Amino acid sequence: MIYLDNAATTLPKPKCVIQAVTEAMQTWGNSSRSSHNNSLLATESIYNTRLKVSKFFNCGDPCRVIFTCNATESLNTAINGIFNPGDHVITTVWEHNSVLRPLYRLQKEQGIELSFIGTDGKGNLELSQLDGLFKDETRAIICTHASNVTGNVADLESIGRWAKSKGLLFVVDGSQTAGILPIDMERLGIDVLCCSGHKGLMGPQGTGLLCLNSEVAVRPLKVGGTGFASYSQEQPQQYPEHLEAGTLNGHGLAGLSASLDFINEIGLEEIYKHEYELAHYFYKKISCIKDIKVYGDWERKPHLATVALNLGEIDSALLADILAQDYQIAIRSGAHCAPLMHKALHTSQQGAVRFSFSYFNTLDEIDRVIEAIEEIGQRRI
Amino acid sequence: MIYLDNAATTLPKPKCVIQAVTEAMQTWGNSSRSSHNNSLLATESIYNTRLKVSKFFNCGDPCRVIFTCNATESLNTAINGIFNPGDHVITTVWEHNSVLRPLYRLQKEQGIELSFIGTDGKGNLELSQLDGLFKDETRAIICTHASNVTGNVADLESIGRWAKSKGLLFVVDGSQTAGILPIDMERLGIDVLCCSGHKGLMGPQGTGLLCLNSEVAVRPLKVGGTGFASYSQEQPQQYPEHLEAGTLNGHGLAGLSASLDFINEIGLEEIYKHEYELAHYFYKKISCIKDIKVYGDWERKPHLATVALNLGEIDSALLADILAQDYQIAIRSGAHCAPLMHKALHTSQQGAVRFSFSYFNTLDEIDRVIEAIEEIGQRRI
Repeated sequence: MIYLDNAATTLPKPKCVIQAVTEAMQTWGNSSRSSHNNSLLATESIYNTRLKVSKFFNCGDPCRVIFTCNATESLNTAINGIFNPGDHVITTVWEHNSVLRPLYRLQKEQGIELSFIGTDGKGNLELSQLDGLFKDETRAIICTHASNVTGNVADLESIGRWAKSKGLLFVVDGSQTAGILPIDMERLGIDVLCCSGHKGLMGPQGTGLLCLNSEVAVRPLKVGGTGFASYSQEQPQQYPEHLEAGTLNGHGLAGLSASLDFINEIGLEEIYKHEYELAHYFYKKISCIKDIKVYGDWERKPHLATVALNLGEIDSALLADILAQDYQIAIRSGAHCAPLMHKALHTSQQGAVRFSFSYFNTLDEIDRVIEAIEEIGQRRI
Repeated sequence: MIYLDNAATTLPKPKCVIQAVTEAMQTWGNSSRSSHNNSLLATESIYNTRLKVSKFFNCGDPCRVIFTCNATESLNTAINGIFNPGDHVITTVWEHNSVLRPLYRLQKEQGIELSFIGTDGKGNLELSQLDGLFKDETRAIICTHASNVTGNVADLESIGRWAKSKGLLFVVDGSQTAGILPIDMERLGIDVLCCSGHKGLMGPQGTGLLCLNSEVAVRPLKVGGTGFASYSQEQPQQYPEHLEAGTLNGHGLAGLSASLDFINEIGLEEIYKHEYELAHYFYKKISCIKDIKVYGDWERKPHLATVALNLGEIDSALLADILAQDYQIAIRSGAHCAPLMHKALHTSQQGAVRFSFSYFNTLDEIDRVIEAIEEIGQRRI
């Protein structure tokens, strides 16, 4: 199998990640619950992972790195925990349902108001719309760092600067970019960063991150045991426990810690370079095939190693099935949980097939994929 | 290290669990997202785990087995997703903060009303109070299957029968008993069962279960991507997706599936017998030591392999530290996130040290622990 579905979850995971999870399962107790070595080992390791994450994203305070089970939980926690009835939120048509559905729910149940930044013909965000969308009630802008469909990357620096100039909170979904592009929360003016641990960060499934700057206050989504202040009826006010109830996914976090070491050792620049070169090579070759339509803007850099395309009018699910069954090529088809992006691309019916590359893919694999698509194209004649 | 903190998280995990997690990390894609083999492998395996769980607890419908990241998430989902303003809920002083804090929050923010079943001198629930607590607005009874402090076990059959007779929902926190005592949802009349995957079920951390009978409706705590129905603004109505947003902890669930096989192979009866024999032996021996006070009712069976005690007036945290540092014995001290139970036991200040046994503990280990406690007791003279 040639695995090109890394935007859904990266595969393989680095060996050190598997090793770290195995060791944790053999030796870790429940973190922050007891004073014996097995528990302390978990507690200390998890704290060190917070520290590592806070440095990785320049979040400032390791105690404001919150561990969740996935980016969806991070986004639900942030969105439900920040906004109040009457707030207006600006977001974009790039967003995943993990952003859209929590917002729609607040719109319906609590009367928050939503506005969407649209795209140009190449799927780029029309940031010129920002000023027109702003109003007195605007509280925040929520934006993904990159479209999970096209791989186009948002100009977070400009958006962050604009958000600051208007006194807005800036919430970023880094699920597609964390571990591939640098995300410096302080430099980019990001107040809340949500991301997966199992995509570009190469960690185990069941891990997600919610990083908060020192000022933003978030009400907890879940409340429960914290291992201290047990006689209080309310969740402790101190972070991270304010937003972390119950037993953490310690074993998964051990893997995430190892994957961060792996990424730091190689360097984000090198990872991005490798992935981009493969994807750009693929894009160039594939664009020459008859009836191939590639979405997104490949003139602009940076661009994620994600290539969305269609072949003629073939349903994207059928093309994905052919690639999987006849060629052992693993990709994803359909809507990619990004309904507004497909409306903007006019692909709501057909969907799109998405090839997403990782640091572990090779040029030889890409050549074989190109050959496969050429062959499928020729079959149609 | 002699590990006797299994009520916090079991250690070691069976080898097959570690093996299954390793294999999943090497081969699984994101479940329910794509049609290629890596994704299908995850999708099918996770469905089979649902099936296994639904059989294990006689839940009826595997699609109403919801995977969460821990019991706290299961309980928050159930408690926030079922009750409405004005509802009255009966619960017990045995409950963990993962039940209490979500209930207190609803009490404060949505005006639900709470009543608590108290305990007798041995920490048993006073079920005779049930009729007196019932009122027209009573919607449900929420009860843990066993006290995480004393190891006393609740008579779920009687409570379930009473709940049915009054037309109430019966919500059970099985975190302490799942994998040790049989829990037959249909036979016991349980509508909602919440539990951890990493305690008695011996699975990885980051796994939890929420099992629903075929009738109960639960509003989602989190909403987001589901891999289908992507153009709907709302979470799909069908279960399990209604309550599962975002990428599941596939790797952890692979381990949980293996641990269920492990438990099924040995048999619950055998696991309980082994643990009970160790704990009862420990209880008998330890009760003879001067100044030892054991909590809970060891005359009643079944009883979990959890022994809570204090030695004279020694602070429980200090005793735990001595056991950990001088004897390499891992236990837990303090409040165990069960504030009302400590009030009932008059141990709010001192806490209690808790020895919790697993299938992997041996009689030899228990003898060494008894010796250690005798020695500490003698040091005080």
